[in-house]
This record gives sequence, C-alpha cells and structure tokens, in this order.
Amino acid sequence: MDISRLPTPCPVIDLSVTRSNIAAMAAVHPGRSLRPHVKAHKCSAIAAEQVAAGHTTFTCATPREILGLVAAGVGEDILLANETVDPARLAALADAQSSALITVAVDSLETIQAASSAGIRNVLIDVNVGLPRCGCSPEQAGSLADAARSLGLIVRGVMGYEGHLMMLTDRQKKQDKVHEAMTLLERAHNDVGGDIMSAGGTGTYDMFGGTKVNEVQAGSYALMDTQYAELQHPFAQSLWILGTVISVNASWVVIDVGLKSLGMDHGNPTVDGFSVWFCSDEHTTIAPAEGTPKPKVGDRIRVTPAHVDPTMAMHSHAYVIENDSVIDEWTIDLRGW
Amino acid sequence: MDISRLPTPCPVIDLSVTRSNIAAMAAVHPGRSLRPHVKAHKCSAIAAEQVAAGHTTFTCATPREILGLVAAGVGEDILLANETVDPARLAALADAQSSALITVAVDSLETIQAASSAGIRNVLIDVNVGLPRCGCSPEQAGSLADAARSLGLIVRGVMGYEGHLMMLTDRQKKQDKVHEAMTLLERAHNDVGGDIMSAGGTGTYDMFGGTKVNEVQAGSYALMDTQYAELQHPFAQSLWILGTVISVNASWVVIDVGLKSLGMDHGNPTVDGFSVWFCSDEHTTIAPAEGTPKPKVGDRIRVTPAHVDPTMAMHSHAYVIENDSVIDEWTIDLRGW
Repeated sequence: MDISRLPTPCPVIDLSVTRSNIAAMAAVHPGRSLRPHVKAHKCSAIAAEQVAAGHTTFTCATPREILGLVAAGVGEDILLANETVDPARLAALADAQSSALITVAVDSLETIQAASSAGIRNVLIDVNVGLPRCGCSPEQAGSLADAARSLGLIVRGVMGYEGHLMMLTDRQKKQDKVHEAMTLLERAHNDVGGDIMSAGGTGTYDMFGGTKVNEVQAGSYALMDTQYAELQHPFAQSLWILGTVISVNASWVVIDVGLKSLGMDHGNPTVDGFSVWFCSDEHTTIAPAEGTPKPKVGDRIRVTPAHVDPTMAMHSHAYVIENDSVIDEWTIDLRGW
Repeated sequence: MDISRLPTPCPVIDLSVTRSNIAAMAAVHPGRSLRPHVKAHKCSAIAAEQVAAGHTTFTCATPREILGLVAAGVGEDILLANETVDPARLAALADAQSSALITVAVDSLETIQAASSAGIRNVLIDVNVGLPRCGCSPEQAGSLADAARSLGLIVRGVMGYEGHLMMLTDRQKKQDKVHEAMTLLERAHNDVGGDIMSAGGTGTYDMFGGTKVNEVQAGSYALMDTQYAELQHPFAQSLWILGTVISVNASWVVIDVGLKSLGMDHGNPTVDGFSVWFCSDEHTTIAPAEGTPKPKVGDRIRVTPAHVDPTMAMHSHAYVIENDSVIDEWTIDLRGW
C-alpha cells in the first residue's frame, strides 16, 4: 500500500533508517552495555528490533511499559528507572518476575518499603547526579541500600540520570560535566555495591569513556526528533507524523496534524520545504518556502516532531514504511501507566 | 472510594463544578444557540451532561468524535467543523446519517467533491474570518455553495472561527474585532443562504450581541484550563490531573504527572501552593511555596493543565469526583481520528 492511502494523522516509521540507527548505537554499546529506554517509542515491535541487534536488557519509565514488554515476550532484564509507590502496579510487576528479571528504582525508605511489600525482589538505588528530579543524594545511597537489603531485597547497583546535560552542544564542556556527574554516581556505587552502574541517554551516549558506567539508557536514538538532531549524532530521523493537506489558501496551507498528534513541549514541529506558522488542536498551518510548489488538497506531508517521546504516546499504532510504501503496522502497545 | 486510592496520573473531574459551568453557559446560550464543541473533552458522558442542560447540537473536530457521539446516542445534529477528504471516514459519517443529522464543513471544490462522493447530505461553508487556518475567503463562499448545491448537497449556512481573537484581554477591542470578523461572515452568509451562522469559542462566547451569529461553538468552558481562566469568565476549573508524590528532596518534590499526561503547547501546568520548575516525560518537579507544608512520598497533588483539549486526549478515562470522593468513571471515548 502507498502512504497516500493511510488515514491521517498517523506516525510513519522508516524501517531501514530505524535499523540503521539501532545498528549504529549497537556498534558503540553492544549487548548489555546498552539498556534501551522504551519510553521513547512505547512499542514492543521496536524493542524487538533492539533485541535483534543484540540487546536483552531494557529501561522503562512506567509499570505499563514493563508489563507490555513482558506480554510481548521481549527482553530478559527490565528496569523501572522511575519511582512508584502504587501497590497494585508493584504487585503486577512482582507477578511478572516469573517471566523476566525485573528491577525497580528506589530513592527513599518509602519506595523501598513499597517495593518490598509488593514482593519485588530486585532494586537499584536511583541517585541524583544534578538534575532536580528523582534520586537520593549520593551520600544517602549506601544507607538506602542497607535498608533495602535488610528487607531482603537484592540491590543490583545504582543509576543516575544526567538529564540536565543532554542538550549541551559544547562537547568538551559536556564531557567534563558528564564525568563530574558520574564521579558522584561512582561514589554512591562504591557505597551501594552491586554490578550495575547505569546512566545516560541519547544526548550523552558517547560520553562515558573513562567512567565506570556499564550500561547506557538511551532511547530516542532509534526514531529521533528535531531537538536531538541538533546534536549532530550519527542517528537519522526515521519517524514522521503523516498529514493530509485539507485546505489551501493564498499564502498558506493547512494539514491535519496538530497538538493532539504531536508532543509540543519542545516547540513546533518542522516540515521540509515549509515554514511552520502554528499548530492548533487538529491543524498545522504551514507556508511553502521559496522553490517549494504549493501542495494541493489531498496531498500528503511528513511532519517531523520536535520531541519523539510524547508524540509516540499520542498514537495507538504506527505504519512501517520503505520509501513511500507501507510494509507493516506496529501497535504502540506500551502506552499508559 | 477516596481519590488517594486512584492510580495516577489520571484526570479527575469535579461533577458539581462541571455542571455549574454547563448551566452558566446554557443560561447565556440555551438550547440550539450553543453547539458545544466536544474536542475540548472528547467524552460522550460530558456531552450527555450538555444534553441534560438543553443542548441537542454538537461541534466536532474529527470524524471519530462524531461517530463516538452517535455510538453513545448523544446529540441530534452534529457538525464536523473541520475539513476532510478521507473517503473511508466520510463514508462512515454518511452511514451515521441514519442516526443523526450530520453536517460537514467544506471550504474548497475538493472537500465538496469528497463529501458528495461519500454520500454526505449536508454541508456548511467554512469561511475564513481572520485566523490563518481553514475556510474559504468570504468572497468565494457563495460560489462554493452553488457548487455544493449543484452536486445535490444541502448547504445549511456558514461557519467562521475567529480563533485569533480568543485570548485578547481588552474586552472593548475584542468586541470590536469579533464584530469585524462577523461582518465578514455575515457577508458570506448573505451569499450562501441557509439557516446557520455558527462561530465562536469559550474566549468569545459573550461577544455576539448585535451580530447575526445564531450558534456558538464553545467547548473549553465545561472543564476549563489555566489559559482560559485568565479571561475572568464565570467558568471555574473542574479538571485536574491527579498525581502522586514519588520523590521528596531538600528543596523540591517530584510528582508522577508529566509531558505524557499534560497538553504542553500552552506551557507548564500550575499546582496550587507550589511553583512548577519543569516537566519531564513522566515527572513534574515542583517546590512548595512559602507556607505550604512539604508533602510526603505517596501524597496526592492536583495539577491544573494549561490547555484542556490536548490534555483530555492523552487519557483513556477520567474519574468523576465530589470533593475527594470518586463517584463515577467516564471513558474518554471520542479520542483519535
């Protein structure tokens, strides 16, 4: 089927480019040295592509992502890199421990107690390395590990997400700051013990030489977005939201891709050959750049989202394409919480 | 059930406040003089509350919203206030004409042809009144109506959305500009004929005195958001995204409400008693204001979204509350396209 027959708005994913992105990352971080983050795509079919490239461990942001991976039979060792005290969801994760090795991040006595009460067996101490979000202070990590072990939990190590450094563009400055953050994480790791020192994302994936980080939690690299594209990494855009031109005016054109099909927290999307004027709930108004012929009502236009993660979460399924042909349809099956 | 037992993040809707908002609007625009826009809530249970307040006509932005209303048996006269050339979706709308009076907006020969080919019987001419989005120029409206009638379509009148004026805060200036825009729409209506002259939104709902607009397409007034709250209308916030505190630090607190549960195009949400630092995919970092006691891990926090429409579209269901008790659960059944 040609993409011109797809119902819009819908995500379209270029399979060759996605596989090439996954291969490029696997070349740098093979096997278990990458713990791909599924929050970026929320799609077990893409996780299966990451398994095909040699990865067996995964990072998740929600219990639902873990349960969906387990239901799809994808992944052997899955980390909830986030805190929860929801007893029902923790119990569901505990039940899933018969199918996969599941590890839950904890950063407080409350989260340790909740994991233990629900029957979770493995935890990781989440350490704050500079981003004002979750994670205990490096100084608290050892005592939290002791508290977890005293409740019978296995403490597999530490994680720390240096999210505040992802978008720095000065590579030397970024490298220095990542190493500073990882010095904090290493100090915590020394107190905590365990095998795992987990960190990173697509923005810092190549910054861990000389550190003791032994797994990187990158996710966006598989599909990419306009924000990460600014970093000049060897990953190419492979996701677009396909739209249809629904109205053509003297100086602008309207497509049926809007706020409800695009993550907007990083700003407007981009459209090759057009300037983007603004997005409404179900529309984006664009104007052809010089040299771009004005499209006609019914023409298809590819929109590149500014932020891949929330964009994928807005859609129930994506179409897999090679050039302009649709070769498969993937359910975005890890949505929700 | 107490809201402290709800799985988070989730929308919670105060039923009394919602009913009070709906009653306040129905007092100004009773019955068919309001054509409530369901894109703001995407929930047929809320549309049923609007029916209970006397409205029988509805505005939709997507075919799915219409088909969902028809499936729920809510509404007698439903307008697709948006253009589409999707043959399958138009055919589904045509099939639904046996259950409700369905009218489709058109603004070009292509959209008229698509509606006619699919078996749609009723159209409205969508007229551009200043917002650079869909709608023909006022001068084209008459000839498009002629073209539609020549294909056997019934042309019920005109609509024009003055979306560029919604957020003006100077009431006199806003009134003048709305009247200017409606003069354009009236000129088109004179050329088009038909009974309907449809316009407006929550931001301009009380600006149509002295115009010939006979139905207002407001939607956000039922649930509200922080942006519309700036306009000082008699509508109160009745929707929040409920979150759980998952991490407490020296100077900040992290809740499990993030970019994937909040429409972000109008900026950050607000949290009473806290300053909002930033949102991540599954987190918002907040800091207690002076006098606000620091919450504990597990506490529930209500987050007020900046923009209600895309926020509701991110959730599969909402909980209906009275004070802190959950009294019902509503499916957000009009999502998608």
